[in-house]
Amino acid sequence: MKLEGKVSQHESVQRMYEIVSGQGVSNVIDRFNAQEKGRCPYCTQGLSCQLCSMGPCRIGPGKEYGACGIDAAGMVTRNFVHLNMLGTEAYTYHAIEAAKTLKATAEGKTPYEIKDVEKLKWFAQQLGIEGEDVKELAIKVADFVIADLSSHEPSKIVLAFTPEKRREVWEKLGLIPNGVFQELLTVGSSSMTNVDSNYVSLAMKSMRMGIVTCLGAQLVIETIQDILFGTPMPHEAYADFGVVDPEYVNIAVNGHEPFVGMALIKLAEREDIQERARQAGAKGLRIVGFIETGQEILQRVSSPVFVGLVGNWIVQEYVLAMGGIDIFAADMNCTLPSLPLYQKYGVKIVPVSKLVRLRGINEGLDYEPEKAEEIAMKLINMAIENFKERKKNVEPIRVENKKKITVGFSPEAILKALNNDLNVLFDALKSGSIKGIAALVSCTTLKNGPHDTHSVTIAKELIKRDILVLSMGCGNAAMQQAGLTSMEAVDLAGENLKQVCKALGIPPVLSFGTCTDTGRAAYLLKVIAEALGVDIPDLPVVATAPEYMEQKATIDAIFAVAYGLTVHVSPIPPITGSEDAVRLFTEDVEELTGGKVMVEEDPVKAAEKLEQVIIEKRKKLGL
Amino acid sequence: MKLEGKVSQHESVQRMYEIVSGQGVSNVIDRFNAQEKGRCPYCTQGLSCQLCSMGPCRIGPGKEYGACGIDAAGMVTRNFVHLNMLGTEAYTYHAIEAAKTLKATAEGKTPYEIKDVEKLKWFAQQLGIEGEDVKELAIKVADFVIADLSSHEPSKIVLAFTPEKRREVWEKLGLIPNGVFQELLTVGSSSMTNVDSNYVSLAMKSMRMGIVTCLGAQLVIETIQDILFGTPMPHEAYADFGVVDPEYVNIAVNGHEPFVGMALIKLAEREDIQERARQAGAKGLRIVGFIETGQEILQRVSSPVFVGLVGNWIVQEYVLAMGGIDIFAADMNCTLPSLPLYQKYGVKIVPVSKLVRLRGINEGLDYEPEKAEEIAMKLINMAIENFKERKKNVEPIRVENKKKITVGFSPEAILKALNNDLNVLFDALKSGSIKGIAALVSCTTLKNGPHDTHSVTIAKELIKRDILVLSMGCGNAAMQQAGLTSMEAVDLAGENLKQVCKALGIPPVLSFGTCTDTGRAAYLLKVIAEALGVDIPDLPVVATAPEYMEQKATIDAIFAVAYGLTVHVSPIPPITGSEDAVRLFTEDVEELTGGKVMVEEDPVKAAEKLEQVIIEKRKKLGL
Repeated sequence: MKLEGKVSQHESVQRMYEIVSGQGVSNVIDRFNAQEKGRCPYCTQGLSCQLCSMGPCRIGPGKEYGACGIDAAGMVTRNFVHLNMLGTEAYTYHAIEAAKTLKATAEGKTPYEIKDVEKLKWFAQQLGIEGEDVKELAIKVADFVIADLSSHEPSKIVLAFTPEKRREVWEKLGLIPNGVFQELLTVGSSSMTNVDSNYVSLAMKSMRMGIVTCLGAQLVIETIQDILFGTPMPHEAYADFGVVDPEYVNIAVNGHEPFVGMALIKLAEREDIQERARQAGAKGLRIVGFIETGQEILQRVSSPVFVGLVGNWIVQEYVLAMGGIDIFAADMNCTLPSLPLYQKYGVKIVPVSKLVRLRGINEGLDYEPEKAEEIAMKLINMAIENFKERKKNVEPIRVENKKKITVGFSPEAILKALNNDLNVLFDALKSGSIKGIAALVSCTTLKNGPHDTHSVTIAKELIKRDILVLSMGCGNAAMQQAGLTSMEAVDLAGENLKQVCKALGIPPVLSFGTCTDTGRAAYLLKVIAEALGVDIPDLPVVATAPEYMEQKATIDAIFAVAYGLTVHVSPIPPITGSEDAVRLFTEDVEELTGGKVMVEEDPVKAAEKLEQVIIEKRKKLGL
Repeated sequence: MKLEGKVSQHESVQRMYEIVSGQGVSNVIDRFNAQEKGRCPYCTQGLSCQLCSMGPCRIGPGKEYGACGIDAAGMVTRNFVHLNMLGTEAYTYHAIEAAKTLKATAEGKTPYEIKDVEKLKWFAQQLGIEGEDVKELAIKVADFVIADLSSHEPSKIVLAFTPEKRREVWEKLGLIPNGVFQELLTVGSSSMTNVDSNYVSLAMKSMRMGIVTCLGAQLVIETIQDILFGTPMPHEAYADFGVVDPEYVNIAVNGHEPFVGMALIKLAEREDIQERARQAGAKGLRIVGFIETGQEILQRVSSPVFVGLVGNWIVQEYVLAMGGIDIFAADMNCTLPSLPLYQKYGVKIVPVSKLVRLRGINEGLDYEPEKAEEIAMKLINMAIENFKERKKNVEPIRVENKKKITVGFSPEAILKALNNDLNVLFDALKSGSIKGIAALVSCTTLKNGPHDTHSVTIAKELIKRDILVLSMGCGNAAMQQAGLTSMEAVDLAGENLKQVCKALGIPPVLSFGTCTDTGRAAYLLKVIAEALGVDIPDLPVVATAPEYMEQKATIDAIFAVAYGLTVHVSPIPPITGSEDAVRLFTEDVEELTGGKVMVEEDPVKAAEKLEQVIIEKRKKLGL
């Protein structure tokens, strides 16, 4: 539906949208609205195939099959599987880059350090890697990870992190995956024209791939980033557009990989750098967090030079239009193709990953671990030079919205909040003080209403029902901007949850991390399930992606189903063209894995249904 | 355009189509015709994106960008890149399976043998692998190949097989690829929503992936299959529907991997097996080649139990409807989703790869090297049992069309035909007896007219112009069924080529292999270019895919462009929605790699244009 009037949950976005749109500059909300006229009904349902030269084909009245003979269930599932593959590839690219960074760091070739030695040792132990020397251990871990993700044998990482009872289920279903490479080859080859036309088989292959994506690649990413940059612990920070002060030299870090951002912060903390910025007429130099790169840093870093997070992927254009950013350093995914148009607001768009290129931007300062410091220094030099021009040419717009938030609720932090005693959590669950837990892992989209509104509504409805929310991904920024990860949000929780939050000193929505943190969320559930001696589907836990957008989200959802969780997904994914496929994902699969997809476009009803699932799980557990 | 009247170049296909269609059974030609009404104009041009929940988006009047901001060039190229990835995955899956088979064979765990020891030694030498013991060498080669394809460093296989002068060009362009895994991660991550929106960058990444696909995976496949099953050498064989005699127990092998087929032949050659078939009332037991699996075997094997090749991917339903096949053993790609409907003609569809599943067919005898013999025996048992039922229940239709053909023109065979003296070829090129060489690497499609007509017309036009044709892929079957790979086709060649063919005793269209053989075609060109001291684009050589169909073909075309060849592609790929993208692939890229895509839908004009390219290359070489 076209967005009119309210376009975002957040005042800052609403205001800047009105300004940008008023100036007639192409922006994501206006482009979305333009697309709302004349959406393809076939593509919306997944009933269009463009794979081969016999097509494009559509399934519809008078066309029961594609030219090859594929039916509706096969076509919609195959299309969906193609999306999942891209998500797997992106997570794995990041995991390999993290491992290479760990190795280079141990070899003394990066500006980073092995910050969390305990975590390194713990991870090595989980993988059966021995060694005393920290650097040697780091190298062994890095090599092990790269070899395992690249392998054609069952993934040792997955086996090490699979909950015991899950393993039995997955073995029966043939879901123990090989390394990512072999799973990609299998899924890719299967989902070509004229190979696997059985929708159930395609879905099962996708789940196998989802398992190695989450328990392999994603778990590796966050573990290594903890080793390098520290495991998140609760601390205060700031979110929303007001973190940008145009009087500073501002370098935005955007994307999903925090490597360049961390190198920037280290340099920016140097007095000589700040002095150079001041000599250029600025108050100093600061790093501004955008999207998941910002979120990764936010969760781990308190630094005077890191101002906080502006928001999630939809805000990019609107923040840049404020005229306060000098360099937009774009790593990995979620850089809008339109950003070159925004250079007129004084910002310079600089890719810092070979993955990222934009129209007219053919080169980048592409990250390699060994070049991290050099890249960061170049960015700083460019930013300081840019500041002088920006000051001359651009009149900035100040947006004051700024929320004090609490972040850093890693599994370790959560355990610490529980005085390292899971019984505190179990008692709270037993007594109903916490009715259940919802993992909110989401992007943000305009498809189901104004930006972030769906996510914020669901989270409010969940905490009102005494359901503790762990928030991840771009949806986490929605929570942060809306104040739900702040202590004052305790008042929005149900009476029981409110007491728990007050007693433990935590907000009702725990800011857990990025979309990549699905891996460690799964690990947290493993710890809980094994302590209780039950399987994942038995836990009073649900997942929700109230505003899924892209291909990392779809493979996350597939993993959640394989892991045994009920996962609410909105907007409805493009598989509705086949009743069989819809029934498979929303009903039949539960018989196999214990998990399923729930679709519900009304956020209040979605929260009700999720509560119902939790209540049923509680009953089965005798709570 | 809807096909009416003539639907195929071949009498056999035409006749069986009329029967099947007359019976009202769903078949590929009728389904194609049904799709011809109401094709989507956006998808046809590549201007539809279904990646994210903000879509589906279309670019068209009033919609210059997708919701994210992607422009037409970015969208069409990104869509195209997604196709290429699937092709890369399929080839690589096959390569890894071939390497595993080689290793298992060396370990004595398969029914195969190291048949071409010289080739093994040659390949090991090329890769810098040392060793005396054949089995040890085979294991080393297998491990090397798997590690290289899975690696995140520059591919050593690619470097070993890149022509010297090409290497310089590719190094300048940043086109020396890493292992397939890293290239897939890079291309997949780049072609997600909001990552690489620069169409040139996407195209370059795709070319890098194409290089490792062809000079890595594809070259590996054929080399290992030569090692295991013998390097193709010229011999006579048969093609067309007439190879099927319903009085025999017939096992069809379909797909792209010859492993199960080769195991079947070995067993079928045993007298006790033939005796069992006879006792079931059959004249014996035979293996029938379908598509590329058949073509792989055809190129290498002369055996009384292997009858030859029925044709290419479009013929599947029509052959099965003849009621003469007992088991359809389906490996890897190109098994029509509709085949379960054809079980009413007495055949049993049995997947022999985990990749292949069909609606209602949830299990398979999935190939693993160690199980090859066991699987083959099970298939034989099933086939003999099936024969009894088929004889009772099905009235077979005899189709007599059967062509005697010459096959087996591997590079080694071609060199042998030249008396192992490349100067014979160079002299022929210099004198104009051979004006040039066209590599015809193609599928088959209905999109540009009746089945195989486009391919056959182009080939006839090329040989008439004294251009020697090397044929590969499903297009090779088109040549075979049409008699162009037979000695009698010499009369269709131009006067000059005719003399050469007569002198060397070769047909004017050399049956070179399957789509997978692109790797060794590239190798042949490397040998020729290096002997002449020139680069690939300097050679009077062109490529044509007159009837491309699927995703292996698109990555082959991308490779050809990177390799420096002019490659004619028909039907026109779905990138026409962007003039920039079309110009990149058909013009601009030539400045970079020396290669380009040529589009021309009229087969006679296409041949004329290809001849023109050859004439120009000859001029530059001073010929």
